[in-house]
Amino acid sequence: MAKEKGLTPQSQDFSEWYLEVIQKAELADYGPVRGTIVVRPYGYAIWENIQRELDRMFKETGHQNAYFPLFIPMSFLKKEAEHVEGFSPELAVVTHAGGEELEEPLAVRPTSETVIGYMWSKWIRSWRDLPQLLNQWGNVVRWELRTRPFLRTSEFLWQEGHTAHATKEEAEEEVRRMLGVYARLAREYAAIPVLEGLKTEKEKFAGAVYTTTIEAMMKDGKALQAGTSHYLGENFARAFDIKFQDKDLQVKYVHTTSWGLSWRFIGAIIMTHGDDQGLILPPRLAPIQAVIVPIYKDETRERVLEAAYGLRQALLQAGVRVQVDDRDQYTPGYKFHEWELKGVPYRIELGPKDLEAGEAVLASRLGGKERVPLAAFPALLPEKLTAFHEALYQRALAFREAHTRKVDDYEAFKEAVQEGFALAFHCGDKACERLIQEETTATTRCVPFEGEEEEGLCVRCGRPAAYGKRVVFAKAY
Amino acid sequence: MAKEKGLTPQSQDFSEWYLEVIQKAELADYGPVRGTIVVRPYGYAIWENIQRELDRMFKETGHQNAYFPLFIPMSFLKKEAEHVEGFSPELAVVTHAGGEELEEPLAVRPTSETVIGYMWSKWIRSWRDLPQLLNQWGNVVRWELRTRPFLRTSEFLWQEGHTAHATKEEAEEEVRRMLGVYARLAREYAAIPVLEGLKTEKEKFAGAVYTTTIEAMMKDGKALQAGTSHYLGENFARAFDIKFQDKDLQVKYVHTTSWGLSWRFIGAIIMTHGDDQGLILPPRLAPIQAVIVPIYKDETRERVLEAAYGLRQALLQAGVRVQVDDRDQYTPGYKFHEWELKGVPYRIELGPKDLEAGEAVLASRLGGKERVPLAAFPALLPEKLTAFHEALYQRALAFREAHTRKVDDYEAFKEAVQEGFALAFHCGDKACERLIQEETTATTRCVPFEGEEEEGLCVRCGRPAAYGKRVVFAKAY
Repeated sequence: MAKEKGLTPQSQDFSEWYLEVIQKAELADYGPVRGTIVVRPYGYAIWENIQRELDRMFKETGHQNAYFPLFIPMSFLKKEAEHVEGFSPELAVVTHAGGEELEEPLAVRPTSETVIGYMWSKWIRSWRDLPQLLNQWGNVVRWELRTRPFLRTSEFLWQEGHTAHATKEEAEEEVRRMLGVYARLAREYAAIPVLEGLKTEKEKFAGAVYTTTIEAMMKDGKALQAGTSHYLGENFARAFDIKFQDKDLQVKYVHTTSWGLSWRFIGAIIMTHGDDQGLILPPRLAPIQAVIVPIYKDETRERVLEAAYGLRQALLQAGVRVQVDDRDQYTPGYKFHEWELKGVPYRIELGPKDLEAGEAVLASRLGGKERVPLAAFPALLPEKLTAFHEALYQRALAFREAHTRKVDDYEAFKEAVQEGFALAFHCGDKACERLIQEETTATTRCVPFEGEEEEGLCVRCGRPAAYGKRVVFAKAY
Repeated sequence: MAKEKGLTPQSQDFSEWYLEVIQKAELADYGPVRGTIVVRPYGYAIWENIQRELDRMFKETGHQNAYFPLFIPMSFLKKEAEHVEGFSPELAVVTHAGGEELEEPLAVRPTSETVIGYMWSKWIRSWRDLPQLLNQWGNVVRWELRTRPFLRTSEFLWQEGHTAHATKEEAEEEVRRMLGVYARLAREYAAIPVLEGLKTEKEKFAGAVYTTTIEAMMKDGKALQAGTSHYLGENFARAFDIKFQDKDLQVKYVHTTSWGLSWRFIGAIIMTHGDDQGLILPPRLAPIQAVIVPIYKDETRERVLEAAYGLRQALLQAGVRVQVDDRDQYTPGYKFHEWELKGVPYRIELGPKDLEAGEAVLASRLGGKERVPLAAFPALLPEKLTAFHEALYQRALAFREAHTRKVDDYEAFKEAVQEGFALAFHCGDKACERLIQEETTATTRCVPFEGEEEEGLCVRCGRPAAYGKRVVFAKAY
């Protein structure tokens, strides 16, 4: 049993560990169609918790949800030149429907800027119709060559925000506001430290004026782009003729933004916190925050279970997502192992002797056990979960700091990106950036907003650096 | 303005009224691809409320959400003979992806029995793996010839529940349990009276052993199938080889069920309650339960708005979804009209004179106005909303009863289905049922579970009746 649930150690093969933990913890399985996955209930429950927190933050910032069609006429995608160039290699195309060949093939949406742009051109007439602050929860399809569960799948679930504004300033404020929402989700809910910054021209969204991003470091030192927020300028407004009459009676193009976060965020959680025993889930997004494992024999079963259900009730009332593992067919050892694998933050062990003493054993997924009086649990556990979150965050932050180096020559750069982030100067030239990628497989992750102002010379070509600060380079998912 | 927002009267052209109210109340708009719609924020907010209540009821009955792929290999659909026959005329097919022609074309899911069946065949080994109680929120595509917003669209949002059980009895219990959840959503949240019953063989789901349904009556006397729950027997288990080893060590096929409710439920709400002034939304699903319209001139603006916001705050705390319409650019008359069109149950009018008297005017969307002391609102409005729900339900029930007739000859039958439901005996023969449809456009809606036991002769052919009770016939959406 222990063997069946055992995982390849991270240090041996991180990539293999990742694939195994997803399967064995029953987060997801492979679908029958290439590159697709099935998200199983335990994985989907994490997604639901992400959705709940994001959706609340979207609504608090004035956004409303809507739903736009899955199918987009191919001609729409061609209206914005960079957009079609970026997305057409990845499109899935419907050519037949209702038993007939379609006159115009339909793209399965890879993202919805075009169809939303089309609708806005009908809905927006006046400054009174602005801003448009929309969000959509849904699926998109991007036919990628190399796929990996959650990180890169042919179809994925995400949210895509789309907003239209009267002015550039308002639109740019929105871009940063929503990036801030993503950063808050990462830090305050997923316990993932992230860098907020600007993508270089090479790495920006196809069709954007510029792209902002949150970047996280995984436990193998690679970067993961966990959410992006784009300023689209007038690009889509011009492509779809989205104009409004302003208060000054002038007819103007709107300024649009879009921002998205997908289930790849679950991949970020897995690879930021997990260890050789399995997942470690951040308490605020964990489907189960504490599991009670009753330990009994036939003659003590009833008594122990009754106490376990009582404790569960008290913890539920304290707002803890708690479950009793009352499966008779498994041993306590098996259960301990399984809940470790599934990354539940706290395990509560409750046996007849504990019960006599009016106590139970509280074991943390981060290590450590203590005896706690039963009556103390409802007050204690919420505090423990907060501390668990903080410890996870600090651990990930320390890891990132230990794996981030300022480098000023190319050899040191090459070493640095083997194990984490390299902070280096870059000339800003796309061709030079491409050469770095070819030579090291590292890419620019972002020009960090928080980076200190500094001048220098390009780490590869020696020309004067662009951006006025160091750029974050890393190998990336 | 009044004209622009004016609607074709229901009595003049119910179908036109329906299309207009959807557009003008901004529930939805037409998408660029044939038969698709865009659900706008106000419409989507109704769907979110439906989702919230259903999702809670699903979880209370032990179900978990999961997500299965959008694309299904064509070969999967062919494994269950009736299933493919029913769905293949409506399929949208992806033939190209990633710039290449696919080896096997992919169907965009019209429903997910097949792909879930395939996954279950991998996941289910033992009785310990049962029951599987899954639900999926998502989109599906059915390429229908005649489309109508919410009721029949090329793509629609829905939930599809899928469960697998060790025994027939357990599966059949599940079918009825989930139909009961739908009936509860209709009655207790949407204020829609529904008949629960069994579909005839002709009308059952393609691939089911039998289908159960909730049927509602729209204001034009037509029926609308608002949710269905199917017993699939071993049909999909045999097609996908889903077997388990039971406690008795025998290897057996599982028994599966599926049940679905889509955004057509929004169509049911519109057509059950709306009137010539627009929508009337059932309070428990209404995005806005009460709107405060402040009435002011420049010199009273500040004072009135302050009171309006104060009242909003008090109502929010009382759990009311309330909004202040503080748009300066519109007159109170315009706002009254718009919120009537949008079907908000209660309007609160608040002007300077009301304020002096410490009162406001409470106007019900069902008619009637009264003066209410400001301090009384938080206690009063939740009660009013309950009463509003009850009044809506009773009104709809009375309408259905007034438009339901027991008929025993074919001429009376033809008249009855012109204006509502006909309760009639039927021989149970598919061919006879088809002739009735051709001759009258009415179809069997269900054999109602609550119908009294009665014997008789088929209303069309005179042969002895099947089912042991009367069948509900109607024209249907």
